[in-house]
Amino acid sequence: MHNYRLVVAYDGSRYKGWQRLGAGEDTIQAKIEAVLAKRLGRPVEVIGAGRTDAGVHALAQVANLKVPESLDCRELQAYLNRYLPDDIAVTDVAKAAEDFHARFHAVGKTYLYRIWNADPPNPFLRKYSLHVQAPLDVARMRRAAAAFVGEHDFTAYCNPRSKSATPVRTVASAEIRTEGALLEIRVRGDGFLHNMVRRMVGTLLEVGLGRIAPEDVPGILASKDRAWTGPVAEAHGLALERVEFEDRHGNRGRP
Amino acid sequence: MHNYRLVVAYDGSRYKGWQRLGAGEDTIQAKIEAVLAKRLGRPVEVIGAGRTDAGVHALAQVANLKVPESLDCRELQAYLNRYLPDDIAVTDVAKAAEDFHARFHAVGKTYLYRIWNADPPNPFLRKYSLHVQAPLDVARMRRAAAAFVGEHDFTAYCNPRSKSATPVRTVASAEIRTEGALLEIRVRGDGFLHNMVRRMVGTLLEVGLGRIAPEDVPGILASKDRAWTGPVAEAHGLALERVEFEDRHGNRGRP
Repeated sequence: MHNYRLVVAYDGSRYKGWQRLGAGEDTIQAKIEAVLAKRLGRPVEVIGAGRTDAGVHALAQVANLKVPESLDCRELQAYLNRYLPDDIAVTDVAKAAEDFHARFHAVGKTYLYRIWNADPPNPFLRKYSLHVQAPLDVARMRRAAAAFVGEHDFTAYCNPRSKSATPVRTVASAEIRTEGALLEIRVRGDGFLHNMVRRMVGTLLEVGLGRIAPEDVPGILASKDRAWTGPVAEAHGLALERVEFEDRHGNRGRP
Repeated sequence: MHNYRLVVAYDGSRYKGWQRLGAGEDTIQAKIEAVLAKRLGRPVEVIGAGRTDAGVHALAQVANLKVPESLDCRELQAYLNRYLPDDIAVTDVAKAAEDFHARFHAVGKTYLYRIWNADPPNPFLRKYSLHVQAPLDVARMRRAAAAFVGEHDFTAYCNPRSKSATPVRTVASAEIRTEGALLEIRVRGDGFLHNMVRRMVGTLLEVGLGRIAPEDVPGILASKDRAWTGPVAEAHGLALERVEFEDRHGNRGRP
């Protein structure tokens, strides 16, 4: 079998997330699989590294597909971009090791949450950032974000319906960068529970608005109680920015 | 009379340009005037500095409105942003001199044209840049752009139906900046004829693709013949970035 790794960027606004659902449900995976089926003449499964939720974007989702035939990477990329809708783009196609699995071999992910923090809205970022009119105290938010770094039981920050085997995750970094009115919250870790990043951002927002004290964030984490966290921040501010893989796949640091 | 200056940002994708047309025609001016009419209880005219075409965006269009009553700038801005659609934002409202006229007193404008120059498309810039897959020779384009700088008769670069009194305009600068696959062509001048920037960009694209020699661009300008220029580049790559005014209005360099 030949194995190909795709890097995919998408504007998730009009999709019900990455993962294929059922007939008539628009998802990124279903769109890509439909174009591949057209190209190859039979159904093909595409495996994504992260199952982004409805409305969440990706700058560089990584996926793989296994097929018996050898394909030309450039031709495959061009074909996909010709037939995919213009809110999905395949930015890279490369041959991968035969056993490469985009989900199982992902060892790190970076998510980016953008906030437009100004009284007037930003028409160009309206679909790619959360508009928060009240001024956010970024210094407080940074102190709170530091509490997420390290290995923790993130039960307080996961969806109650989460099916993960363990709620323990390691967050390598949680940083906030500002550029004018734009706040970028970037969280890197070995993996994230369902809704974890959005609930972390919801908590940071509460901290930035003065409703939760930064010093209380470690305690909220330790409590394993969702009642104390902020709400799940809206999907449209979130984007999967980067996926890292084991070294032996020669693609750590890519795309 | 009280005179107010508005700064307006808009995603022009779904509009037939700035200028009010007729009933049922979506334009930016009509949208703003409708909200003001609702606020003030009578029709009000809003004068824009530049009449952007259908599909063209603005980062900072400037407009003014004259009303007999004194208004609170912050309240007016908040009201406009509450009732305007989310692809139009009023980013500033300030009191202006009684004789300030956004169109007549504009002494300079900067337009930005963005090109996404890569084989795969960019889903996030698809509405705000022209996608050009063939590699562009930026060094050639820069040499050609220099030919536009100065006072020239821009007949070759205007719409034949242009109603301007004179085709002579002064271009202060025409620069091309690159950031990865993104090309930003920024043209600053005292004013622009209808379609002038887009036809200049169309010519620069032909130069970048090797179809027009940079050395031929001054001759095309001197010929006053539209037959030799490149085509009018698509609207969605263009944005009105900045409007400058006479010093006595105390707002040169704003916003």
